[in-house]
Amino acid sequence: MTTSTAVATGAAETDIGARARAARVAARQLATTSTAVRDQAMVAIAEALVARRQDILAANERDIDLAEELVAKGELTDPLVKRLDLSGKFASTVGMVRSVGSQPDPVGVTQRATQIDEGLDLFRVSVPIGVIGVVFESRPDALVQIAALCLKSGNAVLMKGGREAAESNRILAATITQATATVAGIPQGWISLLETRDDVVAMLALTDDIDLLIPRGSNEFVRYMMENTRIPVTGHADGICHVYVDRAADLEKGVRIAVDSKIQGVATCCAAETLLVHSDIAAAFLGRVVGELEDHAVLIRGDARTRELAGVLGGAIELASEEDWSVEYLDYVLSVKVVDSTEQAMDHINRYSSHHTDSIVTEDAAAANLFLCGVDSASVFHNASTRFADGFRYGLGAEIGISTGRLHSRGPVGLEGLTTYKYILEGDGHIVDDYEGDHPRPYTHLPLETVWRPRLGTHHQNDR
Amino acid sequence: MTTSTAVATGAAETDIGARARAARVAARQLATTSTAVRDQAMVAIAEALVARRQDILAANERDIDLAEELVAKGELTDPLVKRLDLSGKFASTVGMVRSVGSQPDPVGVTQRATQIDEGLDLFRVSVPIGVIGVVFESRPDALVQIAALCLKSGNAVLMKGGREAAESNRILAATITQATATVAGIPQGWISLLETRDDVVAMLALTDDIDLLIPRGSNEFVRYMMENTRIPVTGHADGICHVYVDRAADLEKGVRIAVDSKIQGVATCCAAETLLVHSDIAAAFLGRVVGELEDHAVLIRGDARTRELAGVLGGAIELASEEDWSVEYLDYVLSVKVVDSTEQAMDHINRYSSHHTDSIVTEDAAAANLFLCGVDSASVFHNASTRFADGFRYGLGAEIGISTGRLHSRGPVGLEGLTTYKYILEGDGHIVDDYEGDHPRPYTHLPLETVWRPRLGTHHQNDR
Repeated sequence: MTTSTAVATGAAETDIGARARAARVAARQLATTSTAVRDQAMVAIAEALVARRQDILAANERDIDLAEELVAKGELTDPLVKRLDLSGKFASTVGMVRSVGSQPDPVGVTQRATQIDEGLDLFRVSVPIGVIGVVFESRPDALVQIAALCLKSGNAVLMKGGREAAESNRILAATITQATATVAGIPQGWISLLETRDDVVAMLALTDDIDLLIPRGSNEFVRYMMENTRIPVTGHADGICHVYVDRAADLEKGVRIAVDSKIQGVATCCAAETLLVHSDIAAAFLGRVVGELEDHAVLIRGDARTRELAGVLGGAIELASEEDWSVEYLDYVLSVKVVDSTEQAMDHINRYSSHHTDSIVTEDAAAANLFLCGVDSASVFHNASTRFADGFRYGLGAEIGISTGRLHSRGPVGLEGLTTYKYILEGDGHIVDDYEGDHPRPYTHLPLETVWRPRLGTHHQNDR
Repeated sequence: MTTSTAVATGAAETDIGARARAARVAARQLATTSTAVRDQAMVAIAEALVARRQDILAANERDIDLAEELVAKGELTDPLVKRLDLSGKFASTVGMVRSVGSQPDPVGVTQRATQIDEGLDLFRVSVPIGVIGVVFESRPDALVQIAALCLKSGNAVLMKGGREAAESNRILAATITQATATVAGIPQGWISLLETRDDVVAMLALTDDIDLLIPRGSNEFVRYMMENTRIPVTGHADGICHVYVDRAADLEKGVRIAVDSKIQGVATCCAAETLLVHSDIAAAFLGRVVGELEDHAVLIRGDARTRELAGVLGGAIELASEEDWSVEYLDYVLSVKVVDSTEQAMDHINRYSSHHTDSIVTEDAAAANLFLCGVDSASVFHNASTRFADGFRYGLGAEIGISTGRLHSRGPVGLEGLTTYKYILEGDGHIVDDYEGDHPRPYTHLPLETVWRPRLGTHHQNDR
């Protein structure tokens, strides 16, 4: 894909534009739905998935058959076929819908309430963002997760999955669409499945109709989206995470955390790519960790001091190049560098990290706090594996993505990250002129304990 | 300014780039400062302004003299000269610094705390955004306000003011820079004054070094910035605000709110530009409000039904064209339209509003709630003037701007809008592998009452 293709024209764009505008209309209606209506829709989705289990798995089977043919031709890899397969995770996929459905409503939460003056109350209340565009990887269960998170949080969604999962995605999207159509109050058009890369390119230009893009997938693709749209993008291209083992580290914890951070999920964005080791304990620590890593088939690329120490210890380590500090291996490779202070470790991290997740191992509280305050990343850990950086592990329920951006959402993004807020001011004929001029009324600006609640039930009967 | 100038090269860009990178270094240091250090710096700024009052007012006088010459030549307008003048608002400018300084620290606030497992505690803590670029209008007191808000919230700032205030801005920036240089812990380079439009253009390209741009000024300029950068922009181009007078309105309140919304600050972004009136009460309401508006020299442009009713009432009203619904007059002009329901009013607003501030006047709670939930704007009011949409009136202290964007900050933006958050995980050697596989430990995911606090005092002594 090149930049020039970003300006798509013709039929595809018109179609996607129309669907985005329909999604906007649906989003405005969704924003007025009650918690009960959205929760009922979540139950309807879970039940419909169970009812259509056979058909869904049959469609998934066809995707897998096709993928296996491509593997035989060398055009796809085995792990991808494995990720495609829904049969083993059907129950957990349905369970996730029920679990997201049973979370507290992230919408309608009063975040702040202030009495501006007598009878003039200001509320800041969480509301859905509006229309979300999500581009996701080959796992078809991701479609269900994304739809569930968006609907629960009152957002309309345009989604595009991997083409290897085309049949699975079609039946899943249709099942969800039909299930929610039976629930009074859920508008048509809240969910829309895109199928081609051209659709995605068309989406990038819809600045007025899409409020947030969430790309999940390859680094190149995420970066392409970030560079070719003016719509805000939440996501991460790289996940270059660090473990720093301080001179005051418990070395046993250091070994456990370094190994877990590297290999517990080697191809994930929160896996560690670089290990920094304080020079005071480098000989002792490398003596323990190198063998352990090599036992797990991890290839080590060290700076000169690491190689020297490893040489003394009888090991042979490749020399890391300058590029190694900026590479997300997503593989059994780890770069290692010796530093002389926590500050040096922080400087290295602030320069090379993708600001995703970085961890310090130390028993020194002051060093830990220096690191936690000074490392400029979405997640900063003390004596814990970088692999904890995940929405489920954080207790957010499911996650829609992980953000290395600084604004709106940072780190794992759950339901709350799919909301924004509006200010609601309730007065009784209040005008600003009374508060200005020669005898201005003062503002009271008192915090209120009350929450704002819409009065439901008679909404649509007030007009003829 | 045209798009082609957005790619600036050469000396100016290099210089601004270097200043932005220095600001990044300063921002990382500011993020680790304690509340006490930043508050001390705020006091130092206030005291330095008072101490240099004479010099500052003399510089301001020179700006005013030059501006008056330009007025004489017809190159500037009188209101601009009035906005330039610091002499009458020097005390309130210093008072604002003290007031922002005495606000609670927006940084270091624990927003969420969760026990993930025994000994593994997750905190979400507010942190500064980093490096902010602000382009502001001709008022030199705005420079002081912006600097105060950024420093209090721990952010570094690159700022560019109006060229008519060049001398005032220079001495104010120098005074603030010198004052904070005397406070241990405040890094050099946290504030930088830009002087030319080329500097601003250079800033737009610094995606890695500037985290947020806040343009304040003309619609065209704000739009230019939004369209020529990939850095997130907080602000508003248009302020097309509406007052809808429902059929269940108290007409007296309707008149007061319509008049105040239109004329209390006619050139402000939260002034009303369109009045929507329910047909049931249109004759009675227009009969009262038209004369009142005309008494205040407001020119009315009405749709056909408004003109007809006004004709019956003996008035003559210009016909509004389709363009009138999308114009921010910023003047004594108001477009008026008759609608047949709250839904019609909402449809009009959701179509033409700039999503800034819209108000309903009604005694019908159901109509009010329909409007408050269904109007897709940053601020939605019930029985109150649109002119209340302001950070000070909202009780946020000073405001750095008003956002019509949906993400991160919406509506008036105060100190809290200048922060983001990071996740801090405190463990004791915890690894993810223990929570997966055959005998996984369960997560506890219990809410914690504790807040995260950095342990200060020994930070820099832990390393040799």
